Amino acid sequence: MFQSFEVTARPEQGPPRLTALRTELAREALDGFLVPRADAHQGEYVAARDQRLAWLTGFTGSAGFCAALRDVAGVFIDGRYRTQVKAQVAAIYSPVPWPEESLAAWLRKQLPKGGKVGFDPWLHAAGQIAATQAELDGSGIELVRCNNLVDRIWEDQPAPPANPVKVHPLQFAGERADQKIGRVAQSVAQAGRTAAVITLPDSIMWLLNIRGSDIPYNPVAHGFAILHADGQVTVFMAEQKLTGLDGQLGAQVVVRPPEAFLEAVEGLEGPVQVDMATVPQAVVDVLGDRAVDGGDPCALPKACKNASEIAGSAAAHLRDAGAVIETLSWLDAQPPGSVTETQVVTRLEENRRRDNALQDISFDTIAGTGPNGAIMHYRVTNETDSLLKDGHLLVLDSGGQYLDGTTDITRTIPIGTVGEDEKASFTRVLKGMIAMSMLRWPVGLAGRDIECVARTPLWLAGQDFNHGVGHGVGAYLSVHEGPQRLSRVSHVPLQPGMILSNEPGYYREGAFGIRLENLLVVEEAPALPGGDPERAMLCWRTLTYVPIDRRMIVVSMLSDAERDWLNAYHRDVAEKIRPRLSDAAQLWLDAATAPL
Amino acid sequence: MFQSFEVTARPEQGPPRLTALRTELAREALDGFLVPRADAHQGEYVAARDQRLAWLTGFTGSAGFCAALRDVAGVFIDGRYRTQVKAQVAAIYSPVPWPEESLAAWLRKQLPKGGKVGFDPWLHAAGQIAATQAELDGSGIELVRCNNLVDRIWEDQPAPPANPVKVHPLQFAGERADQKIGRVAQSVAQAGRTAAVITLPDSIMWLLNIRGSDIPYNPVAHGFAILHADGQVTVFMAEQKLTGLDGQLGAQVVVRPPEAFLEAVEGLEGPVQVDMATVPQAVVDVLGDRAVDGGDPCALPKACKNASEIAGSAAAHLRDAGAVIETLSWLDAQPPGSVTETQVVTRLEENRRRDNALQDISFDTIAGTGPNGAIMHYRVTNETDSLLKDGHLLVLDSGGQYLDGTTDITRTIPIGTVGEDEKASFTRVLKGMIAMSMLRWPVGLAGRDIECVARTPLWLAGQDFNHGVGHGVGAYLSVHEGPQRLSRVSHVPLQPGMILSNEPGYYREGAFGIRLENLLVVEEAPALPGGDPERAMLCWRTLTYVPIDRRMIVVSMLSDAERDWLNAYHRDVAEKIRPRLSDAAQLWLDAATAPL
Repeated sequence: MFQSFEVTARPEQGPPRLTALRTELAREALDGFLVPRADAHQGEYVAARDQRLAWLTGFTGSAGFCAALRDVAGVFIDGRYRTQVKAQVAAIYSPVPWPEESLAAWLRKQLPKGGKVGFDPWLHAAGQIAATQAELDGSGIELVRCNNLVDRIWEDQPAPPANPVKVHPLQFAGERADQKIGRVAQSVAQAGRTAAVITLPDSIMWLLNIRGSDIPYNPVAHGFAILHADGQVTVFMAEQKLTGLDGQLGAQVVVRPPEAFLEAVEGLEGPVQVDMATVPQAVVDVLGDRAVDGGDPCALPKACKNASEIAGSAAAHLRDAGAVIETLSWLDAQPPGSVTETQVVTRLEENRRRDNALQDISFDTIAGTGPNGAIMHYRVTNETDSLLKDGHLLVLDSGGQYLDGTTDITRTIPIGTVGEDEKASFTRVLKGMIAMSMLRWPVGLAGRDIECVARTPLWLAGQDFNHGVGHGVGAYLSVHEGPQRLSRVSHVPLQPGMILSNEPGYYREGAFGIRLENLLVVEEAPALPGGDPERAMLCWRTLTYVPIDRRMIVVSMLSDAERDWLNAYHRDVAEKIRPRLSDAAQLWLDAATAPL
Repeated sequence: MFQSFEVTARPEQGPPRLTALRTELAREALDGFLVPRADAHQGEYVAARDQRLAWLTGFTGSAGFCAALRDVAGVFIDGRYRTQVKAQVAAIYSPVPWPEESLAAWLRKQLPKGGKVGFDPWLHAAGQIAATQAELDGSGIELVRCNNLVDRIWEDQPAPPANPVKVHPLQFAGERADQKIGRVAQSVAQAGRTAAVITLPDSIMWLLNIRGSDIPYNPVAHGFAILHADGQVTVFMAEQKLTGLDGQLGAQVVVRPPEAFLEAVEGLEGPVQVDMATVPQAVVDVLGDRAVDGGDPCALPKACKNASEIAGSAAAHLRDAGAVIETLSWLDAQPPGSVTETQVVTRLEENRRRDNALQDISFDTIAGTGPNGAIMHYRVTNETDSLLKDGHLLVLDSGGQYLDGTTDITRTIPIGTVGEDEKASFTRVLKGMIAMSMLRWPVGLAGRDIECVARTPLWLAGQDFNHGVGHGVGAYLSVHEGPQRLSRVSHVPLQPGMILSNEPGYYREGAFGIRLENLLVVEEAPALPGGDPERAMLCWRTLTYVPIDRRMIVVSMLSDAERDWLNAYHRDVAEKIRPRLSDAAQLWLDAATAPL
C-alpha cells in the first residue's frame, strides 16, 4: 500500500513499442495516431490499463500526449515537465513545448495535405477534437476516429479496475444525495435541458455521496451517469463495484452496466447538457446536435464546500499537520548526507498512517533534494533516489486522503548550510505566498484576476515559475479539482467555500527548487472600518498549519506586515498542533515557531 | 479656443425631444430606436453633429447609449458615470448599469415577442450588433436597420466637420508613411486578405502621417480608408480638407470623396480584413461573407511607438510638467475658499498655452473639488463650478496635445486642512501607483494579468475603484488609444514602446475623490544579477514628472522601497523640471520635492 519507488517506464522500452505502433499505422493506412495521457474521464490519474502514454513513450507526467507519426513522434509536454521528459523518453521521441506549440500547428509542419491522424474517440474530449480540427482547417489534414492502436499492441495490458464502492457518510458530505440530485437536476431543467451527461468520476461520487478506489490516490470509481432533468439518475458502472451498497443509493438512482451507456445516451431527447471540455468525442458523436455545452452541472456545486466539508477539511489538516511536523522534526535530527529521498517519503507516509485515519496519500509524494527539487513534479524512484546533502534544499510536497478531507502541503527544507541565493529566493516565494494569504478582493473576480499577487516579489528580482499559483482541492475527492484555480487561465469567479492551494515556487534547473504550499478556503470578508460599505469582498482562511522554515528566511526582506503574518501563523501552528505531537516534536516545534 | 464651461445639455430638454422621437417611432412602426454616443468611427470624442445622445438625453459621458422605447427609455452607463448620469438626465430616462445589464437582457424584459428596435447601421459596430442579436436569439425581438431618427427631429443639427489636414513631420512620426503602408499592407497580404477597411481616424492619421482637427482634442480628421494588400491606399475624405497637402500624400495614396466609400468597399474582392469591434454594420452589410475579422491592422503597429515618438513624448511631458507645476504652485498660494474649479482649469490652460507649443488640450480638464472629485469624469460647467474649500481634495486630471506627444496627468491636491481618512486613502492609491511603476513582468502578459497590482493596497482596506488602472495613449493622437490597456478585459500582450496611463483612484460619493496618474512607456527590462537568464521581462519608464503631494502621504504606511521610489521620483522631477520654472514655482518645487 505504501508509495512505490519502482521505475514504471524506461526510455529503452519506447523505440520497439513505437515500431510496433507504426506497423499498425501502416495496416490502417494512417499517417499517425494520438496517444493521450487521459482516459475516458479526463482525470489527472489513470488506471494501470490506461497508462498508454507512459507505456509507449516512458513519459510519466500527469498531462500531455504523443502524436506518433510514421517518421517522427512528438511528445507534447507543458512547462512543469520540460526537465522530466528529457530523462524519461528515448531520443526517437521529440519533446514539443505545449501549449506554446499546438498539436495542429505541429501537424501542419509534419504532414502533407491529405494526412490522416487516427484517434480513439473515448480518450479525447469533444472540445479538444473540435478545436484541433478547426485549427487544421484548410491544411487538408484530418483527424479520424479509429480503434485504439496502442491497446492492440499492448499484450499484457491490465484489466479495467473494479474495486468496491462505499457510501460517503452524511456527517462528512454535509448534504444528502437526494438533495444534491434535486438541486443539480433543477439547474439542468432551468437551463432548458432534458438531461446532463456526467463523465467525471469525482462529480458522480460527489452527487451520489459515494467513494471508490479505481485509480491511485483518488477515492473515485470509474463510471458514467445521466442526470435527468426530472431528478432521476442513471449510473453506468460495473455491478460488482456496487454490491456492498445494499440499495443505499436511493430510489431515484438506477444502476446499469457500462456497456449500456452509449445506447442510453443515444436514446435521450435533446437538448442534452455536456461538458465539451471533458466529454468523450464518442458521446458527442451519438448525440449530434442534441449536445449543448453547459459544463458539468456538478462542478460548481461540488467546488463550493458546505459547512460540514469545510469543518472536515480543517480537522483533516490538523491531523495531517501532526504527521508532517513529526517528519520534519525527525529529519532535522539526521545529519546531512545520511538520509535519502525515499526514506523521507516512507517516513512521512508512516507518520500519516500511524493513527489509521489515512485512507491513502493524495498523490505520489514529491521529495526532491538539490537538483531534483527543480523538477516540479519529481517522483522519486529507486534509480533517482538521492542523498540529502549539505547545502541542498529539499522540496517536500505531499498530502493525505482522509474521510473528512483531502490535504496537500509543500515545505522546502534546508539541509545543513545552504547558500544566500537560495535563502533570498525562498524569501521571495514566501512573500508571494503571504501576499496571497492576506489578500482581500472584490466579489466576482476569478483566479486570473489575482494570481499575480503571488508572483510579483519574484518578478521584481527577475524570477518567476512555470506553473499556476494554485489549484482547487476536493473534499475527500481529487486533490486537483476544477473549476476553481489560481491561474492565468481561470475565469471562474471565486466563491465562498472553494478550497484552493496557494503554492508559489522557484526552480533553478540543475541546482535547486523551492515551493511553499498551504490550502486556503474562500470566505466572505468581514467589513472593515473605512472600507466601502457597498463593496462585498472575499478573503482566505488558511487550513494548513505547519511551520515555514525560519532558517531560510531573510528577515530584512520582509515588511512589517509580512513578519506579523508569519509570527501570527506560527503562533497558530503551535497552539493547534503542539498537543498532537510527540515530546521530541514538541521541542522541535517550539523552536520552529519562535517569533522572528 | 479655451475649454468651455457652457452647460451643453440640460435635463429639461430631454422630455420634449423624447416625445418627438417617439412620434417618429410610431411613424416607422418601430418599438424603439438605439441612440449611441458613438459616431461612425467609434471614437471617444464625437463632432457636434454626432452628439445625438447628449442632445436627446442630456447625458454627456464619453460612452453609453440610449434605448428609447415607446414607454421607457434606458440610458446605459458604465461604472464611471453612475453619479454623473443622475445629475444630467430627466426622470423620464431610466439609467441602466452597463455592462452588468446588457442591452439584450434589458430589451427582453421590456419588449414582447415580435418587438422591433431600429438602429442606424453607420453608428453601430458590426460586432456589437451581432452579439446583441445573438443574445436576443429566441426572444422574437429583432434589431432592424433604419434611417437615423434623431437626425430627422434635430432641426439645428450642425454640419459635419471639414477642417484642414496637415502633414505630421517625419521628425515626430519617426517612420515614413510609405514605409508604414508597406509593412501594414504586407501583414494584410500575409494573412491572406486582399485589403483591409480602416474606419478609425487615428489609424488613418498614423498610417499616412497626417493630422486633422475634426473633433475636439483629438488631432484627427474624419474619413475612411481601404488599404490594399499590394500597398495602395484609397482615402475617402472631403477634398476640401486635403487641399493644403499639395500632393504630399505620396503616389501610393488615392483620395476619393466620402460618398464613394461604400461602393468601393462593395467592389472589393474577398477576403477583406475588418475590425468587427469597430467597423460600422453598414460596411459589413455590403461585404457580406467577404468580411473577415482581423482587427484594425494599424492598431498594434501604432501602439508600439518608435524611438522618435518615445523621445517626442518624453519631451512633451517635460514641457507639460512645467505648466502643471506652475499651476500647482500658484494654487498653493491661494487661500482656501478663494478660487473655483473653472479658475483652476483656465489657469492651467493658460500655463500650457504660454510657450505656444500646445496644439490643444487633450481632453476637457477634470477639476473636481470636494464631492465633485467623486464624479470620475466630472466636467465642470458654470452651473456646477464650486469653490475650493478648506478640507476639500481637488482632483485635477488634464493633458496637452503637442506636435511631439500627448500628455495626460492627474494629481490630487489638498485644500487647507484635510481629514485623516482622505490621507490614508490617498496613501493607498499612491502605494498602488508605485507598485505598478516599479513592476517588472514576464514578456507575453497582458494588462489584465498585472492590473491588480495597483489595486491591492486598496483591497486590503476594503476599498476599490470602478475604472481600469490605465489606458493606452497615442503619439500626438488620441489620449485614449487601443489596444493596450491596464484593465481586467485587456488580453493584448504588452510590448515595448506602448505608452499607458497608470491611474489608480478612490472615490467616496458625495464626499471626495482621489486619483493619481502618470504615463509610462513599456521597455525591455534589463537583466538582473540572480534573475532567470532565459526569462525576458518588461518594465516601465515613467514619462510624467510632477510632484505627488507630500502633505497627503501617511509616511508610516509606506514601505522602505515605496519611500525610496517616491524620493527618487521627486529628485528626478526637481532635476528635470526646475530649470523650466518661474522663480516662485522653483521655490515651491523645492519644498514639494524634499525627501520624505
